[in-house]
Amino acid sequence: MSGSSQAGVSVAANAAAATIAATSREREAKVPTTFDVQPVLAQVEADFANAVARYIDFLRIPSISTDPTYMKDVRRAGDWLAAEFRALGFEATLHDTPGHPILVAHHAGPNADAPHLLYYGHYDVQPVEPLEEWTSPPFEPAIVDGPHGKRVVARGAVDDKGQVLTILEALRAWKTVHGALPAEVTVLIEGEEESGSVSLPGFLAAHAETLRRADAVLISDTNAWDIDTPAITYRLRGNVYVEITLNGPSHDLHSGLYGGAVVNPINALTEVLGQLHDANGRVQLPGFYDGVADLSDAERREWAALPFDEKGFLGEIGLTQSTGEAGFTTLERIWARPTADINGIWGGYTGEGSKTVIAARASAKVSFRTVPNQNPQKILDGLRAFLDARTPPDSKWTIRQFGASEGILVPAEGPYMQAARAGLQDVFGKPAAMVGGGGSIPVVGLMQKGLGLDSILVGFGLSDDRIHSPNEKFELKCLKNGILSHAAILGRIAEIGKK
Amino acid sequence: MSGSSQAGVSVAANAAAATIAATSREREAKVPTTFDVQPVLAQVEADFANAVARYIDFLRIPSISTDPTYMKDVRRAGDWLAAEFRALGFEATLHDTPGHPILVAHHAGPNADAPHLLYYGHYDVQPVEPLEEWTSPPFEPAIVDGPHGKRVVARGAVDDKGQVLTILEALRAWKTVHGALPAEVTVLIEGEEESGSVSLPGFLAAHAETLRRADAVLISDTNAWDIDTPAITYRLRGNVYVEITLNGPSHDLHSGLYGGAVVNPINALTEVLGQLHDANGRVQLPGFYDGVADLSDAERREWAALPFDEKGFLGEIGLTQSTGEAGFTTLERIWARPTADINGIWGGYTGEGSKTVIAARASAKVSFRTVPNQNPQKILDGLRAFLDARTPPDSKWTIRQFGASEGILVPAEGPYMQAARAGLQDVFGKPAAMVGGGGSIPVVGLMQKGLGLDSILVGFGLSDDRIHSPNEKFELKCLKNGILSHAAILGRIAEIGKK
Repeated sequence: MSGSSQAGVSVAANAAAATIAATSREREAKVPTTFDVQPVLAQVEADFANAVARYIDFLRIPSISTDPTYMKDVRRAGDWLAAEFRALGFEATLHDTPGHPILVAHHAGPNADAPHLLYYGHYDVQPVEPLEEWTSPPFEPAIVDGPHGKRVVARGAVDDKGQVLTILEALRAWKTVHGALPAEVTVLIEGEEESGSVSLPGFLAAHAETLRRADAVLISDTNAWDIDTPAITYRLRGNVYVEITLNGPSHDLHSGLYGGAVVNPINALTEVLGQLHDANGRVQLPGFYDGVADLSDAERREWAALPFDEKGFLGEIGLTQSTGEAGFTTLERIWARPTADINGIWGGYTGEGSKTVIAARASAKVSFRTVPNQNPQKILDGLRAFLDARTPPDSKWTIRQFGASEGILVPAEGPYMQAARAGLQDVFGKPAAMVGGGGSIPVVGLMQKGLGLDSILVGFGLSDDRIHSPNEKFELKCLKNGILSHAAILGRIAEIGKK
Repeated sequence: MSGSSQAGVSVAANAAAATIAATSREREAKVPTTFDVQPVLAQVEADFANAVARYIDFLRIPSISTDPTYMKDVRRAGDWLAAEFRALGFEATLHDTPGHPILVAHHAGPNADAPHLLYYGHYDVQPVEPLEEWTSPPFEPAIVDGPHGKRVVARGAVDDKGQVLTILEALRAWKTVHGALPAEVTVLIEGEEESGSVSLPGFLAAHAETLRRADAVLISDTNAWDIDTPAITYRLRGNVYVEITLNGPSHDLHSGLYGGAVVNPINALTEVLGQLHDANGRVQLPGFYDGVADLSDAERREWAALPFDEKGFLGEIGLTQSTGEAGFTTLERIWARPTADINGIWGGYTGEGSKTVIAARASAKVSFRTVPNQNPQKILDGLRAFLDARTPPDSKWTIRQFGASEGILVPAEGPYMQAARAGLQDVFGKPAAMVGGGGSIPVVGLMQKGLGLDSILVGFGLSDDRIHSPNEKFELKCLKNGILSHAAILGRIAEIGKK
């Protein structure tokens, strides 16, 4: 996942939502439906224990896409899903790619006029390091008690296996109750989201003709506002991820015999990376801020008015203050400002004790969060220029790239967005918060640019779910509300006439 | 080891040496000796194949002192040596310490007037990482061909197991030929030199009364000038080694959800360490240069006159230019200027591919080479002040210390130094170069301060021996010349009357 960390109730947008989307009961009376949604929701409740058992099964597969050691396990997770969709009457194919396979499953609608919905998710998960900080093995899901009832601790519990399961189980409930789905459904679930979705652009291009037949994309890879309040994310940052290495001497040297007289690549790397930001927290790559739109006064006012618990947000990660680009609030920094973060660094001796070595090379993984209208290629060019201008004597940079995506702005209106808001209102009994997100979901941009499809981002994670960290968890309450919401949203979408 | 990397023929000093130390044959005619050295040298030649076999045996023991995994192997190396010395009639004890054991072996002299020589060496070795760069396993010694004949590739080949063996085998040859040694000999060989000699100061203090009875210390842990020219090192840098960690958030975070709004410990660590040097390469810790003596014009002129092959020195490590503190030559930078080198750095995700994480902490190993009159405690205080002044919000520094030693200046005159120069002249047929060294041999300072004993540093390594690096090697020619030199020096020392 990558979506919103904390969400914000966009007051104006939600006032509109409240007007348009009446409660479930009111709408039922007014709108003729082909399929009745209430028994579907009841079926979700009745079958929930079985859904949890399937979910645990899915979580046991260590589908870490970024580490080649787990290549077969990643495929195994794709196979597992394919079998599940086939059991629901889908035509499902696990397509080979240059990287990990992509699952595409298709189910016909009730008639030619039915809307066609494309669901997207990912079945791969993040690495688990540092392993020693987990309270239970990351791929042996543990059901434990928490303040909101039972929760499941496992890698992928929410990101994105848990969210994918909310879609699968909602479709299952419809199929069980009605023997059919109320809309035409295509499901695309990839296995490379956590390693940059490298194969996805080529795949979407190759299958554009088929996929373009969908009317809208529905994605669950973001957070709810809180455990009782749904959220729709309409703004996302992109990400440019690189690994850089500074190569100096031909081999490791003794720091006594050479220290002070020759280039030390670790010294030099810290000097260069230490200049990534200026004193105001602005990223120093040439051209980095080209195209970055200023926030409108209206948007800043709306965000400032959100009931955002900054103290709680920071407190749950052991901090008391936000730091970053001067002149912006915490939500603005996360939702609307580009960044440069070193995600990993290594070089020289890192074992116990001391070793007096000058390393031959030093490396770092660096990522840049992008915002709408920022050009990823320009950032890569700026990085190259930034590094080249700071190359130490006799040294050479190596740069590897792991994916590059743009920031995204999704139109907050339209019938599918309204249907999603209505379905969430049906289940939660209150309007969804309209929020931004700091993370990246590359597929949103690809769907928009490549297929002309807008994505609706409805997610059920919480900000304390520790995704990408040890002890990732998902509340069973969130899992169930997610399944109910997808079941309800599908019913609402079925009511939209084919565009 | 740690001594000189390249050496320099101190022209003035060597002119004096040439006058004082006549050739072996001339001196033999003039000086009455109790023991004849020539059959000892012949015995070294005759027994060399056996000496190599013992040497290979010793190298097989993976005595890496800095890594607790090898604790038993370190002791095994000490036991191996103790047995060898006992076989030569030494009273040998492997003393327990809070760290690795220290071997002390003692052999009586021929009479009460004989000089008493204290040999020092270390039987521990450096770690072997990066293992994949070795052409043969580091603890399976390989005898391979090189431009100077056979050489041995193994961790510890020269540093310091090979050099320790030159002492052991010289003593063996004396014992074999004469059934006795020509001087009283104590041997002290520690197992923690590569991890900061942490237990040594306490041990020397506890055994000061006994050890102080020696007349001089002889150490082989430095280099020759080149394969045909011996060297004595009279100037050494010390070393202050620390591991620092910057602790930020309570756990690893998703860089999309938090990036740009909270402290990133890796970003911050590079910013802080990137300020270690100013634009002129001067170390920026407060008070760092307090006490550092300027080089005299005479010393700078002498060093500048040395036949130092700077192009070759840099070329063999893949470099073309020296970089460092402005206003100093390469030899001055290595022999007489203090440094700050990052020896290791780590944090965040360092595996294959990408992980969008903000690490909870980031660490580095940093060492400071010290020169005479620089106070190690003051450097630690300066580091603390430097870091504290740059602490990011909500963050905390952890500092661990691994040894601290001062720079050393050894008087280049005196009867023991003259005897060493004469013995080297006997074997090599030319005077020893009088050189500085960039590395650290903490025991030299301890012997000087704690026991009032000056050390004579006679070593047989070459600058391309790749100590502390993959594929460390020792030329068999250097091994043999080392044994011959120690045999000859012991003969010369026997001629000195008890002081």
